[in-house]
Amino acid sequence: MKLLQDYPVVIELPVQWGDQDALGHVNNVVFFRWWESSRIAYAERVDLLGEGRSGRFGTVLASMTCDFRKQLAYPDTVLIGARIGRVGNSSIHIEHRLVSRRQEATAADAVSVMVSFDFENQTSCPISSNVRAAIRSLERDRPIEGLAGC
Amino acid sequence: MKLLQDYPVVIELPVQWGDQDALGHVNNVVFFRWWESSRIAYAERVDLLGEGRSGRFGTVLASMTCDFRKQLAYPDTVLIGARIGRVGNSSIHIEHRLVSRRQEATAADAVSVMVSFDFENQTSCPISSNVRAAIRSLERDRPIEGLAGC
Amino acid sequence: MKLLQDYPVVIELPVQWGDQDALGHVNNVVFFRWWESSRIAYAERVDLLGEGRSGRFGTVLASMTCDFRKQLAYPDTVLIGARIGRVGNSSIHIEHRLVSRRQEATAADAVSVMVSFDFENQTSCPISSNVRAAIRSLERDRPIEGLAGC
Amino acid sequence: MKLLQDYPVVIELPVQWGDQDALGHVNNVVFFRWWESSRIAYAERVDLLGEGRSGRFGTVLASMTCDFRKQLAYPDTVLIGARIGRVGNSSIHIEHRLVSRRQEATAADAVSVMVSFDFENQTSCPISSNVRAAIRSLERDRPIEGLAGC
Repeated sequence: MKLLQDYPVVIELPVQWGDQDALGHVNNVVFFRWWESSRIAYAERVDLLGEGRSGRFGTVLASMTCDFRKQLAYPDTVLIGARIGRVGNSSIHIEHRLVSRRQEATAADAVSVMVSFDFENQTSCPISSNVRAAIRSLERDRPIEGLAGC
Repeated sequence: MKLLQDYPVVIELPVQWGDQDALGHVNNVVFFRWWESSRIAYAERVDLLGEGRSGRFGTVLASMTCDFRKQLAYPDTVLIGARIGRVGNSSIHIEHRLVSRRQEATAADAVSVMVSFDFENQTSCPISSNVRAAIRSLERDRPIEGLAGC
Repeated sequence: MKLLQDYPVVIELPVQWGDQDALGHVNNVVFFRWWESSRIAYAERVDLLGEGRSGRFGTVLASMTCDFRKQLAYPDTVLIGARIGRVGNSSIHIEHRLVSRRQEATAADAVSVMVSFDFENQTSCPISSNVRAAIRSLERDRPIEGLAGC
Repeated sequence: MKLLQDYPVVIELPVQWGDQDALGHVNNVVFFRWWESSRIAYAERVDLLGEGRSGRFGTVLASMTCDFRKQLAYPDTVLIGARIGRVGNSSIHIEHRLVSRRQEATAADAVSVMVSFDFENQTSCPISSNVRAAIRSLERDRPIEGLAGC
């Protein structure tokens, strides 16, 4: 789909009836569940999540920004694309786009900022070169801020 | 409150606006989040949960039954009572009642069946005498099926 | 799929990472969102829902029963089947079965009891002959309690 | 509480066990349910929501930004403050702060941007003078960008 052509990782999820709130639209909170699923789908592709709950190193969600563009309703299916916007020393910006199949339009855009974290020392730590290489491979020739020199 | 006088563990929770669905009432799924919170509040009082994720022994939810009696809406506050209905060899029935402060009425009743479980051997195991004693102490003189002989 | 061969309405839903709780399994509450989606998928096929929020007649969820058989985890996809168990004068029992693709096993069974309701008079009302006929047509030759004489 | 002294509308909500995800912390999505509850609590105080589902005028959520500062776990109680950050011609920025009682610390900050909307013409419309006056009254002498000249 053209709206998602720059997004190398796309997931597809159904709108459930119960995702709707008292105004008859998909509740805003549901979008954040979807961003999370998109973020994890991307992270799995570049081995970003670390060793999970028991490990010393991992990645934490530092911030989220979301712009709502269209209201959604049941029934529908959404496509959620993820791509890297920027790679810092210890942070990664994942850009998400949510497209409604029914409306054939972008319903929302979002950014997740994730930070590589050392749980033992409770401090941020550099994004590994393995993760950088995996991102470069996945994103092909799209230029990404902060990834050039790696 | 009289509607909950036989329930030794009562928690109080607010209805949030977003708990409502497209029909303008609190969605049925929210009730199950509340039953879970009630179940855990009771379990904490009688040390029923075991050692959690890392332990060998724990308690699993085997079944849930819920009768819906009234529709709820925002704003409201709900009280959820829990009491033991029956204690078997390896299972415990927790009876829940949900009361709406605004309606001063029971909005739903439910039963959680929990089973004591040995995760290493993947089999149910007997409810410990400590848990039985804690239940008897918490429930005072209310007769409980299966608890007499302990 | 053989486990669902008697269920005329089957939906397929992904497990999302965030469906998991602190024990590392899909939280029990998520199952009830899925039962709801299954219930609505069935209801749409037999025109059971009525005119929705603004109408005089509709269908309300009177009770839910759920037996949990397997724990689920991300990633997985679930199939949820729905069929009619019983049709009363004003109530319909929908039986649900949830199958994990990864485990190729039934993870839970449930029953939703729905009641046809007259919101103006705040009383239950008979299941219409249209709905009965639609159920008979959808369920083919499977015998259903309470549907014979319609 | 000092952390919330500039926030004229504060709500208090319990952390439920089921709010936690597989990493053992309150899942990020739950924060957005809480921001919504905070947003609505503020909006009710200044009559911002309009006539709801059936009305011509209302307010829509245009964007959300959230900075996560601390991880939360069950049991805890959170306080969520809301205050106005900025009032534009048709938009209002509500700033939220979430404080953990257990940690006595700010766990997250967020901004909701709401836009006054004319559903009939599908276009944004000016914030009414009534809403502006109600905000000025609620926020007392705190200077607010965009509110001076109203």
